[in-house]
Amino acid sequence: MKAVARNSRRLSFLRLVTVPECRTSIGGLSSQGMDVILPHLDSRTGDIEANARLISDLAHASADCDVLLTPELALCGYPPRDLLFREGFVERCEQVLDDLAATLPPDMLVLVGCPHARDADSGRCFNGLAVCRGGRVETWADKRLLPGYDVFDDDRYFLPGGGSRWVEHAGHRIGLLICEDLWQAGDVQEHAQYEVDPVAELVKEDCDVIMAASASPFIVGKHARQVSTVTRLAREHGIHVLAINRGGSEDDLVFDGGVAVADAHGSLLHAHQFPSDDAALIQKVGVNGTAVEPPSSDEDAQRFKAIVTSVRGYVRKTGGRKAIIGLSGGIDSAVTAAIAAAALGPENVTGVMMPSRYSSSHSLEDSRTLSDALGLSACIELPIERIHSATRDVLKSCDEVAHLEEGSLADQNIQARARGLILMTISNAIGGLVLSTGNKSEVAVGYATLYGDMCGAMAVLGDVLKMDVYALARWMNDHPSHAGFKGPPIPESTMTKPPSAELRPDQVDQDSLPPYELLDEIVRLWIEEEQSAGRIIETTGADPKVVSDVLKMIDQAQFKRDQAAIIPKVSRRAFGRGRPWPIIGRPGAAPVWIPASTTA
Amino acid sequence: MKAVARNSRRLSFLRLVTVPECRTSIGGLSSQGMDVILPHLDSRTGDIEANARLISDLAHASADCDVLLTPELALCGYPPRDLLFREGFVERCEQVLDDLAATLPPDMLVLVGCPHARDADSGRCFNGLAVCRGGRVETWADKRLLPGYDVFDDDRYFLPGGGSRWVEHAGHRIGLLICEDLWQAGDVQEHAQYEVDPVAELVKEDCDVIMAASASPFIVGKHARQVSTVTRLAREHGIHVLAINRGGSEDDLVFDGGVAVADAHGSLLHAHQFPSDDAALIQKVGVNGTAVEPPSSDEDAQRFKAIVTSVRGYVRKTGGRKAIIGLSGGIDSAVTAAIAAAALGPENVTGVMMPSRYSSSHSLEDSRTLSDALGLSACIELPIERIHSATRDVLKSCDEVAHLEEGSLADQNIQARARGLILMTISNAIGGLVLSTGNKSEVAVGYATLYGDMCGAMAVLGDVLKMDVYALARWMNDHPSHAGFKGPPIPESTMTKPPSAELRPDQVDQDSLPPYELLDEIVRLWIEEEQSAGRIIETTGADPKVVSDVLKMIDQAQFKRDQAAIIPKVSRRAFGRGRPWPIIGRPGAAPVWIPASTTA
Repeated sequence: MKAVARNSRRLSFLRLVTVPECRTSIGGLSSQGMDVILPHLDSRTGDIEANARLISDLAHASADCDVLLTPELALCGYPPRDLLFREGFVERCEQVLDDLAATLPPDMLVLVGCPHARDADSGRCFNGLAVCRGGRVETWADKRLLPGYDVFDDDRYFLPGGGSRWVEHAGHRIGLLICEDLWQAGDVQEHAQYEVDPVAELVKEDCDVIMAASASPFIVGKHARQVSTVTRLAREHGIHVLAINRGGSEDDLVFDGGVAVADAHGSLLHAHQFPSDDAALIQKVGVNGTAVEPPSSDEDAQRFKAIVTSVRGYVRKTGGRKAIIGLSGGIDSAVTAAIAAAALGPENVTGVMMPSRYSSSHSLEDSRTLSDALGLSACIELPIERIHSATRDVLKSCDEVAHLEEGSLADQNIQARARGLILMTISNAIGGLVLSTGNKSEVAVGYATLYGDMCGAMAVLGDVLKMDVYALARWMNDHPSHAGFKGPPIPESTMTKPPSAELRPDQVDQDSLPPYELLDEIVRLWIEEEQSAGRIIETTGADPKVVSDVLKMIDQAQFKRDQAAIIPKVSRRAFGRGRPWPIIGRPGAAPVWIPASTTA
Repeated sequence: MKAVARNSRRLSFLRLVTVPECRTSIGGLSSQGMDVILPHLDSRTGDIEANARLISDLAHASADCDVLLTPELALCGYPPRDLLFREGFVERCEQVLDDLAATLPPDMLVLVGCPHARDADSGRCFNGLAVCRGGRVETWADKRLLPGYDVFDDDRYFLPGGGSRWVEHAGHRIGLLICEDLWQAGDVQEHAQYEVDPVAELVKEDCDVIMAASASPFIVGKHARQVSTVTRLAREHGIHVLAINRGGSEDDLVFDGGVAVADAHGSLLHAHQFPSDDAALIQKVGVNGTAVEPPSSDEDAQRFKAIVTSVRGYVRKTGGRKAIIGLSGGIDSAVTAAIAAAALGPENVTGVMMPSRYSSSHSLEDSRTLSDALGLSACIELPIERIHSATRDVLKSCDEVAHLEEGSLADQNIQARARGLILMTISNAIGGLVLSTGNKSEVAVGYATLYGDMCGAMAVLGDVLKMDVYALARWMNDHPSHAGFKGPPIPESTMTKPPSAELRPDQVDQDSLPPYELLDEIVRLWIEEEQSAGRIIETTGADPKVVSDVLKMIDQAQFKRDQAAIIPKVSRRAFGRGRPWPIIGRPGAAPVWIPASTTA
């Protein structure tokens, strides 16, 4: 077990994570094993120099280790997107890499994720793992399998690596892989099929260790599948496998900082997900360790950690600390506020209650209870009545709008937009990002007002179905200490009252929507599973008209989603860039057709 | 010269376009040539059945023609995006295609763009041209080159076609190509390089005619490059070439309905772009015609037609007729209103003047002059003062915002958002889409308010640089009849006064921005040319600090663009889906680094 020095302020992110005691040597290896640093790295996209410093500091802080493995594209950050096309960007990465290599401990093998060798004709480059040793970049291992499903568009940017690559170090032959080379879409249950198997090729070339560097976006349940892939491959091929994922977040993507290590018998030696910010694992490889159980984490805990990571990453990387949230007294804003408090500290979260003429008194009470339970920095009450009536008055001189019926759609939207106006003004005045509160079920059917409650930098719960929002609330109330809450954060009455937008008298969500249990299931099957209308009707047993109406609402709401805030992706298919969709395609036509057998 | 029957209401889109008289037969061909229908088709994405009816009606209306060529993916619409992954969608296309083929004139060769043969393992399908003849689908020609640059992500959806395909008909051997197979990125000056040349392969297989079906998004200048490609290939290979593009628009993409036909000597027989909605060309092929000059169209005329097509398509395909535009008296809102009037008819355009305490009197006068010149349905004046002051009053009870300085950023944004609130309420009350008015230069540097002047279904001028907006205004004033205007639409004083947002006293744009001539050039080089900061400084000769400041503003404004309305794409690189960009990547770091030689 090794201790990592904490020799500078910059290195405060480095701390020892306990690793299993190493006991037995295996096979014919005389080596006592090599020490591999598997750090929790959250590179900043585009900030090449700062990322290089992070890597350099890591290496020097544990200079007696044998190997440092960094995640995919650690030097430029992931995903760099079209930044890769900017003139000179890839060349700049190469130059900073050369400078970095020259300063690294010369006997350490440092594997640095970095784009390189841009092809002037195609504009594409390689997604490589630079093999740094002896003060220079010795060679490269390039990513071979380039995924193009879900949020991935590797083909746009990268040329596939030409063949398998390994490097000998400390008595081992180490095969090098990048992300999809190892996972081959098995971790996300996608269709992707590849013609080559980079793992099998490395085994054929007598590698005894495989190291895989990933930047693999979080999905609930993905880590367990990755851990199981690592142990299965180790067992099947009789090799050691080490896999590392980047941490932190980048726009809509969350990364779990996951690590999985298996020995050549397929025993799991170590696995973790969402380690503390400053964790770095030093793993001994090449000797057998004690097998550990795969970490268990329920879905709600995973969602909580992922979304907290996303909110924290987004707010901090934009240079801020604060968040502003409109509190309605309902479950979505309560859970959003609790997540923000966990991510940023409650002292950095401002709650704003904006009652209208239709708001119920319990809404304000519930919001105050929530704010007290969380210890928010403030819970401001700003009634929207004056803006609501001023807007109605101004529009009276417009003939077409003069008689705006109370409770009409236009009138409801004025209220939602007056709230957006207030939140954004507070944001402009005090700094801090507005977080919007809509859940995935609402985002799906468009049960939200553009430029109203959709205002914000991030739609925190936009990939969480309504019933899962309740489950998340229950999980937080059951495990308050996990999130640093003093007690159960979500008021009981918020959990139990019927959901309502409170934009007209006595309104409840179920006036316009089917029960959330059914709505959630339809959304899940239609969006995450891409099922046809006919199959959804079969699966749910629901009234075909109800299903068909929901599907039409989903297709018709694309124009709202197209202007929505980014959504932390936690499911297999989130709204956003992983689901490119026509806005003005004809809903109600083919996309929603229902087989005659079902409607007959 | 053939006449096309107009035998039903559905066929009102069919009208004869004059084709050059056919004079000479060429080569050893005994044929008097074959008649090919090249229709102007604007398929509706996802509406398979309606698209099939369009194709069937076209074929039957000119049943004595030999060939009907439809654009790429005409049956399902283009781009279908992830709709292709929906369970049963591709199979439904195949089924409707079979039904269509059975009803077509049996002796006609009908080439129908359609996805097919979905591979269950990979989830991908082929982007094919179905060869329909004799009442059935005889065979398929599949797209071979799958572009992945700019707005294209063909690799996500399609498998590459396996080889060259031709069909014999009416004494000709006709080689079949789809879009990129013919253009090979030459029309967009992109890097893409392909290993195969489908044109050369068809020539080797003794084809004497090539027919290419495209859905090629508009870019200023692209049509001329496509026409020149068609004649060059015809001349080089001694073959007839016919190329057809889809028309209309789909979300942010505009299609020019372009046609180019060259004979086997490389003479251009016909070329057009943006034909009338109901045009269908009948082209005789296999005999020489009279060579024509390539159509000339200046950049402003092209931009005008493309954006008009986009606005019309978007509004109509969402089922609407009307547009609502905030009129500031400035050049951007004037040009937006004029384009909307040309696209929808002035009777469907409502102008709304929303003066604030800082608005100048000439702003209202200019807007009224504009409205009169265009004949807008209404020009409503709704001062925002009451909403502005109500918002300020409401916020007084919030300590942090109580002393909102007049003219501060927060105060400016309240005004912009009050206007957004009014426009959206009118939209909700009377129907009709709000069109936003920001130009590309403003969108680039973020000189706009989210949920304020950025409200709207479409950012009409979002891909037009500021100086090009002026040029467009001048073009409209110089050619009023081209656009159906009664006289020059844009008031002279709007053309000549200094641009101002009028959000604080005596404000002009140049207080916070460099002169638009320079700003435009920086934006063009940085966004459209992907040049490095260093090269932009060299190219423009501008102060490095000015350039660097602008580049930082551009990178930092990504969060606004990420929630912006769709932008009709008219340039090589528009903001939107053709430019995926990190939102929280670190601006000021690598993306904007300036070579030491320049700063020294």
